Amino acid sequence: MAAIDHVSPLAPAQFPDLLDIAGASFATSAAGVKYTDRKDVMLAKLAPGTVVAGVFTKSATRSAAVLDCQEKIGIENDQGAAIVVNSGNANAFTGRNGIESTKAVTEAVAQTLGVPENRVFSSSTGVIGEPLPHARITAKLEEMSRAMSEGHLSDAAEAIMTTDTFAKGATRTISTANGDVKISGIAKGSGMIAPDMATMLVYIFTDAKIERAPLQALVSELNESSFNSITVDSDTSTSDTLLIAATGASKVDVTEDAAFHDGLNAVMLDLAHQVVRDGEGATKFVEVAISGAASNADARTHALAIANSPLVKTAIAGEDPNWGRVVMAIGKSGAAADRDLLSIRFGDILVAEAGWVSPDYTEQAGASYMQNETIVVSVDLGLGDGTATVWTCDLTHGYISINADYRS
Amino acid sequence: MAAIDHVSPLAPAQFPDLLDIAGASFATSAAGVKYTDRKDVMLAKLAPGTVVAGVFTKSATRSAAVLDCQEKIGIENDQGAAIVVNSGNANAFTGRNGIESTKAVTEAVAQTLGVPENRVFSSSTGVIGEPLPHARITAKLEEMSRAMSEGHLSDAAEAIMTTDTFAKGATRTISTANGDVKISGIAKGSGMIAPDMATMLVYIFTDAKIERAPLQALVSELNESSFNSITVDSDTSTSDTLLIAATGASKVDVTEDAAFHDGLNAVMLDLAHQVVRDGEGATKFVEVAISGAASNADARTHALAIANSPLVKTAIAGEDPNWGRVVMAIGKSGAAADRDLLSIRFGDILVAEAGWVSPDYTEQAGASYMQNETIVVSVDLGLGDGTATVWTCDLTHGYISINADYRS
Repeated sequence: MAAIDHVSPLAPAQFPDLLDIAGASFATSAAGVKYTDRKDVMLAKLAPGTVVAGVFTKSATRSAAVLDCQEKIGIENDQGAAIVVNSGNANAFTGRNGIESTKAVTEAVAQTLGVPENRVFSSSTGVIGEPLPHARITAKLEEMSRAMSEGHLSDAAEAIMTTDTFAKGATRTISTANGDVKISGIAKGSGMIAPDMATMLVYIFTDAKIERAPLQALVSELNESSFNSITVDSDTSTSDTLLIAATGASKVDVTEDAAFHDGLNAVMLDLAHQVVRDGEGATKFVEVAISGAASNADARTHALAIANSPLVKTAIAGEDPNWGRVVMAIGKSGAAADRDLLSIRFGDILVAEAGWVSPDYTEQAGASYMQNETIVVSVDLGLGDGTATVWTCDLTHGYISINADYRS
Repeated sequence: MAAIDHVSPLAPAQFPDLLDIAGASFATSAAGVKYTDRKDVMLAKLAPGTVVAGVFTKSATRSAAVLDCQEKIGIENDQGAAIVVNSGNANAFTGRNGIESTKAVTEAVAQTLGVPENRVFSSSTGVIGEPLPHARITAKLEEMSRAMSEGHLSDAAEAIMTTDTFAKGATRTISTANGDVKISGIAKGSGMIAPDMATMLVYIFTDAKIERAPLQALVSELNESSFNSITVDSDTSTSDTLLIAATGASKVDVTEDAAFHDGLNAVMLDLAHQVVRDGEGATKFVEVAISGAASNADARTHALAIANSPLVKTAIAGEDPNWGRVVMAIGKSGAAADRDLLSIRFGDILVAEAGWVSPDYTEQAGASYMQNETIVVSVDLGLGDGTATVWTCDLTHGYISINADYRS
């Protein structure tokens, strides 16, 4: 793993023991794209019959690799597939050269692994606007192809890191109506994270059997309540990509299976929360839960206004139960609110209601709650049935330090 | 003036010598609303015949004082008027008590100064959600009424400060078609600043003669390109208020006068820029100028996406010419953009065009430019005639320090 000065205090105790997924093998390499002395390329080979679905950034300035993936994602082909990812360089806003670099990498992967070029999906993450030295990647493909193993997914989680302070993985065995299937996923991302979409880079693998259309529908649906419901700094990357590959090796059909739905949701939420837990400079994991809004859309607007407010986020960093800033964020969001109907809770503590501080609330109780590592801010608008939950982190000196000299 | 540890490095060299405005007199007091040992209340008395117009926050959770002003602002009455402002407590989200406190203050001012209660405008600024100890204010009114003087406007600028590191004032003599008039204005604000509307508290006085309707139309128009075009942290206060009082004492009619239009615009822009220059923790004054957008609305969306991006703002703080983050912000804004048509300039330096870094651009030139105190980021979308300019500051450790322990 890359040398990291400081692991996020919110990191999970340990990286999970990722289950091998039959039909999906991996290799990594230290290709020196930008970083030295660390893995910076990961290659995944997916067996014939594998189905791939995905969700991508909606940025108007999205990268060459994202545009390429979007062209390929709908193609039905059972001759296998591949995913290649580099860290250190985003190959975004690199003009015609960017397109050529993407093509050079995907063509070389296709040739090396013997899969069709239109089934090779690539991602690049790192600095924007610098040419991708793609020859450093292609020079390593032959060596990587000889090292492919189902057991190397953990290494892949490390290879795709940029400013991440810990590798992110999640894994589940799911008992479906037709038998057991496995899901293992990895993700990277810690800054430039906001809807739409907050995926950063996410790769999920399963041995379940499912056709492309239902898999795409499922991942698009679950993405809304997971990666599209997290925010670190309201900034959205030009490279955000989520790919899911179902190898079908288990021969267990999971189409419209409720357990598979819930299991995949759990893996995606777990990875999304890990991204927030690695938010640049984060010291608090924050859940913002809205209820009683006029609509679900209004609830989401309020939730994001609170979660993206620099004043709310700095108050949480300072362990200050400054609920006045929550009121401010609701007021500015633009969604329907009535000052005298809304109520605010920190955890289980009723802080404000009926247009003022709750008579039972004490500053001491609020201040004590704010010392927790996980903070839940709940707001009931008192207007309707709309609900939404988003996750974020606090805004600290660490965020400034990381981002004021990222390129230096 | 209140003890201030550290004056913003972007502060003007000195507070301007504000011109006295005939018909507008002022007094201040150290009432101990929250702060001790500093002026925290200002009182303005406006002569009979004075016309008052205003613009207010659109927050759904706006304060009792704002709601009260909005009820009164349209009233035509030539028996004089008054403005009373306290710092230290916003009297926002204080329920029924908030309404009662506002009424107690405005009634006492009306009685003390002998003006109609429905012509007494009040503002409160400071912490949200704590009851306003209004008796501390009303106890000082008699003393203040005896000290009223046209020369005390500078003191008023100090009395309304909260986290401001310098008092803000602007003044002009304007030669109109019908003769000379004077404008003097004061403002406060350094955080929780964003459209709509970014006024914080602004009070402008002129001896010009103009009726209420055209004055209101003029200030509403000019507000869009001044206070509604600045952003410090994307957060909007529950108390934002701009009031303009035209005493008419000069007997110079300025209705539809171009010079008055431009002069008032200059005063409002000057004050708006001073608010940005006092942005919490600011070390750089940043202008974001968009041209070639599909519409003016699109241009404004792009400009605010750049100006509010934490990643752009931290890059500027770090003097990093990270134009990739400008591309990112344009991409996420949601307004129309074509990666291959847009061009980006830092000052006069062409940084990126045709989908990539400009062939003549050097990192050295960019890095050198970023050392300036004033940074101009210009983007031409290459799509149409839409333009917009907004102003902001960088995002530094200072912002975190100020806001993580504001209430402590």
